[in-house]
Amino acid sequence: MAVYTDVDDDELADFLGRYDLGQLIAYKGIAEGVENTNYFLETTAGKFILTLYERRVSRHDLPYFLGLLEHLSENGIKCPLPVKTRSGERLSELAGRAAAIVTFLDGYCLHTPKARHCHDVGTALAGLHGAGKSFAMQRKNALGKSDWRPLFELISSRVETIETGLAAMLENELDWLDQNWPTGLETGVIHADLFPDNVFFLGDTLSGLIDFYFACNDALALDVTICLNAWCFDRGHRFDLEKGKALLAGYQNQRPLTSGEREVLPILARGAATRFLLTRSYDWLHASKDALVRPHNPADYIERLKFHRTIKDASEYGLETPA
Amino acid sequence: MAVYTDVDDDELADFLGRYDLGQLIAYKGIAEGVENTNYFLETTAGKFILTLYERRVSRHDLPYFLGLLEHLSENGIKCPLPVKTRSGERLSELAGRAAAIVTFLDGYCLHTPKARHCHDVGTALAGLHGAGKSFAMQRKNALGKSDWRPLFELISSRVETIETGLAAMLENELDWLDQNWPTGLETGVIHADLFPDNVFFLGDTLSGLIDFYFACNDALALDVTICLNAWCFDRGHRFDLEKGKALLAGYQNQRPLTSGEREVLPILARGAATRFLLTRSYDWLHASKDALVRPHNPADYIERLKFHRTIKDASEYGLETPA
Repeated sequence: MAVYTDVDDDELADFLGRYDLGQLIAYKGIAEGVENTNYFLETTAGKFILTLYERRVSRHDLPYFLGLLEHLSENGIKCPLPVKTRSGERLSELAGRAAAIVTFLDGYCLHTPKARHCHDVGTALAGLHGAGKSFAMQRKNALGKSDWRPLFELISSRVETIETGLAAMLENELDWLDQNWPTGLETGVIHADLFPDNVFFLGDTLSGLIDFYFACNDALALDVTICLNAWCFDRGHRFDLEKGKALLAGYQNQRPLTSGEREVLPILARGAATRFLLTRSYDWLHASKDALVRPHNPADYIERLKFHRTIKDASEYGLETPA
Repeated sequence: MAVYTDVDDDELADFLGRYDLGQLIAYKGIAEGVENTNYFLETTAGKFILTLYERRVSRHDLPYFLGLLEHLSENGIKCPLPVKTRSGERLSELAGRAAAIVTFLDGYCLHTPKARHCHDVGTALAGLHGAGKSFAMQRKNALGKSDWRPLFELISSRVETIETGLAAMLENELDWLDQNWPTGLETGVIHADLFPDNVFFLGDTLSGLIDFYFACNDALALDVTICLNAWCFDRGHRFDLEKGKALLAGYQNQRPLTSGEREVLPILARGAATRFLLTRSYDWLHASKDALVRPHNPADYIERLKFHRTIKDASEYGLETPA
C-alpha cells in the first residue's frame, strides 16, 4: 500500500457525488506535489487531479490558492482550474482532509530544460505577474525574507552535518541580506516555486503551470530570481548564461524590469538561493522515512549562493540593457 | 523529486520513438505496483502504463509475464496488453532498466470489497485459470511451498520482534505443512497475488486484473486460497463467511473444484497464509526508509493462519457441496 491517505470506497463515492462529474473511470495515486496527496482522476466528464491537503498546507490559505487558480485561468493563464461542487464550493472534504478537484493539464515536465524552454518560462512568469495584478486576495510570503533567520535558528546547530562551514556561511549571508535587502520594489502575486517540475510542456510548447501552493504577494523580481536559480544552472551547478539570457529576455518581452529591479537582481538572487538552501537543509535534516519523496540535496544551493556572491551586475545573468 | 528512476527527456523521447504511439500528452509517476516503477502515459494513441522493472523482478522472467499478458488478452481476459515496439519487441530498455508499455485499464481498485465483488473475483480467477491452460511457457513459483522454509530461516532470529511466539508458530506450521502438503493437484497458470489492489472495477463491474509479476505455474486451488485470504476477511481479520461463499461460488460457476481440491482446501489456505506471513514479515524487517510503499503489517496474516488452523472442512469457508 502506498503512503497515501486511505480513502474508503463509500467515502470516495460520496465525495464525487458532490460534483457534477459523471461516473468514475480511473483513480490512481500520483507521485506529484511534495506537500499534498494527489490522485489522477478520470470520470466520464474528463481528466482531473484530486488533491488531499496534508500537513504543510494551511487550510486557512486554501481559498487564496484556489481563488488564484480560478482568477488566473479566467485571465488566460494555463493552469489547473478548480472544479466546483454542485453547491458551488471549490473546497470540499475527504477522509478527514480538505480536498479539491482541479482540471488535469496535458503536458509533462522536463528534466533538462533547454534555453528555449527557459525563454518560455520567463514569458509565462511575466504573464502570471500581469494576470495576478487584478487578483483581490492577499497572502503574505510564508517563506519571505523575514522568515529566513528564524528558519536558520531552528537548524543552525545541525547544518554543519550537511557541509562544514555552512552555519557560518548562512549566518554571514543573513547579516548581509539584512543590510542590503531592497525595499519599494513592485509587488504582486508571485508563484514563488516555479521549478521545472511545476511547468508542463507539450512537445516544445509550454502547456501550463502547476503547484501554486507557495504563491503569495511579494516582490515580482524576487520570483524572477527564483526562476534564475531553478532553471539556469546546469547539473554541475554552474550558471548557464545562455539560459539566463533566454529566461530574462522571455520575461522582459512581457514585462520589462525597471531600473530599480535590474540593479538589485543580484541581491534578490542571493536571497532566493538562501531561501531554498534553508528550506532544503531543513527538509534534509527532518526527512521522514515514510515520505513519498526524497528531499532535494541542499548542497546544490550552496553552489548557487557562492555563484551569486560573485555577481556585480545583473548583466552577468544575461540581462540585456534596454535600447 | 519522487523516489522514481530519473528518466532524462531525450532518453524518454528516444524510448517512445521506438513505439508507434504518436505524440506524448502526459507522463506521471503513479503509486501502483510494489516491485516496479510505473508511469501513467498518455499519447495521441491512448492511455498506457510504462513500467520500469526494478530490483525484485528478474529480467529472466519478463518474457513469461509479458507473454502471459498477451496470451490472456487474446483469450478474453481483461488485463493489460503489452504494446510492441515497431520492431515487434514487448520488452525494451529505458534509463538502464528493462521497460515495457502496456495498455491502460479503466477502473479502480476497491478498498473494502463486498460479497458481490468477491463473487466476480472468483469468476475472474477461474477464467484466468481456464485461459492459462493454453499458455505454453512455464515459470516455477518462486514463493511456493519449497521456498517457505528457506525464507523463514533468513528471518527466524528476528520474527519475535514482530510478535512473541511467532518463531515457534512458523516453525510448527512449516513442519505441519511438510507432513500434510498435498500432491497431484491440477496445476496451471496462477496469478498468485490477486489482492484487491490488483483487481479493477468500474462501478460494480469487474473491469480487469493487473500486476501479474508473481504469476507462475502451480496448483490452481492454491490460487483460490490466496484469494480467500486476500478478499474474505474483514478489517478485524475475522473470516467473512458470506464473502467466502460468494468467492467460491463465483469460481465454481466457471471451474468446479474437484473432490481432491475440496478436501485439501484448508491445508492450501494455511499454506497461502504462511506464504504471505513470511514475505510480509521479511518485508517488515527489511523496510527501507526510501521505499515508496509502506510494508503491510504481517500481524494480519498471523490472525488468518490461526483461523485456518481451526478449519476442519472446506464447507466452513462457504464451499457448497455439488448437487
